[in-house]
Amino acid sequence: MKTLIILSHPDVSGSSTQQFLMAATQTLENVTLHHLEKYYPQGNINREYEQTLIADHDRIIFQFPLYWYSSPATLKEWQDVVLDEKKIDDWQGKEFGIVVIAGVAKKEYQAGGREIFTMDELMRPYQAVANKFKWQYLPIFGIYQFAYMTESCKQKLLIRYQQYIMLGNSQSLADRMAWFQHQLTEVSRTKEASVQHKIDLIKEQLQANQEELEMLRFTLDELE
Amino acid sequence: MKTLIILSHPDVSGSSTQQFLMAATQTLENVTLHHLEKYYPQGNINREYEQTLIADHDRIIFQFPLYWYSSPATLKEWQDVVLDEKKIDDWQGKEFGIVVIAGVAKKEYQAGGREIFTMDELMRPYQAVANKFKWQYLPIFGIYQFAYMTESCKQKLLIRYQQYIMLGNSQSLADRMAWFQHQLTEVSRTKEASVQHKIDLIKEQLQANQEELEMLRFTLDELE
Repeated sequence: MKTLIILSHPDVSGSSTQQFLMAATQTLENVTLHHLEKYYPQGNINREYEQTLIADHDRIIFQFPLYWYSSPATLKEWQDVVLDEKKIDDWQGKEFGIVVIAGVAKKEYQAGGREIFTMDELMRPYQAVANKFKWQYLPIFGIYQFAYMTESCKQKLLIRYQQYIMLGNSQSLADRMAWFQHQLTEVSRTKEASVQHKIDLIKEQLQANQEELEMLRFTLDELE
Repeated sequence: MKTLIILSHPDVSGSSTQQFLMAATQTLENVTLHHLEKYYPQGNINREYEQTLIADHDRIIFQFPLYWYSSPATLKEWQDVVLDEKKIDDWQGKEFGIVVIAGVAKKEYQAGGREIFTMDELMRPYQAVANKFKWQYLPIFGIYQFAYMTESCKQKLLIRYQQYIMLGNSQSLADRMAWFQHQLTEVSRTKEASVQHKIDLIKEQLQANQEELEMLRFTLDELE
């Protein structure tokens, strides 16, 4: 599966969240990070090129900061220029996800909260686009108040973000464990022998944990 | 009440709906029609000027064709540039409406329909903006499949549209009748005596109808 991240942000250098996420995508295989404002500093989105990008990938992710309960204008411009109902048959069967960064706490996005609507509700226009193109709509990946997160929270976020980008809808425990093992193997390659040995121990421990979890699940199934 | 219509459409000359609606606003008092793409052919929205426009009006209407379940990119750009949370106190108490033109039938905008979501759901981001600025959110004025309407339907639409623009949330029967009487008086002024006489007869008839309706309502109230 190849993932295309269409990033819209007018000032990524000034955004610690975007810097953090962009660093997290650099080492990932089969992931194309496409930053619209960087690629088109003068505007003038190239319809044909963008349509080729969509055709070439299996999973499309919109990534943006929430500006007035939607994306920055550039991503809307991209939609207006690039999306084409004539491509529904060519493009069908892809996965479609949203990584949205909000400065307000998650609890405000609900009835009775300051923002009244859930993020799911606010993103309906994108869900309708996914529906139109017969794309599988992934659960929204929302990042709320990144600046207030502890370092440990940020690291956990990084893992979940990478899994969202690379696994999309295939996020069972087994899928995520396999992903972890693969990532550890990749990291291990560039390290010295002593570090490689430690990583091997971690991998063995993960493997043992997974087997134990599977045993527990088997026992649970027997009890039911 | 002064109404500001912020119109976003990249090609109004090619849109029969927009031509029709624009003609309908030309004769209206206290209505400013502000076409973004015409006013800013080079882009570069003037933040200060736009903020003055908002401050000067009591009712703000976004008018646009539905592009990917939202406005054209220019109106999003306008939001990103112009809207400012620091203005919440200055701008509060306004009315906010949406005139949205869709090429798909209204019945498709519902669960089970081709577009899945209602127009109310798709416009949540605007409702959230209205909530943020403490603006009273008006029922959406949706125009569906204008091209297929009969001439008589179009004329009825025109009246309803003008009432939406000028009356906003004050659309009781009495308000609408008063509006009608006023419009007829205005039209009458520029006509010759014989036409003026006919208009006076219509006004009398409307007045009589309204009195009859009020009598009927009184009788109904008595019966309850």
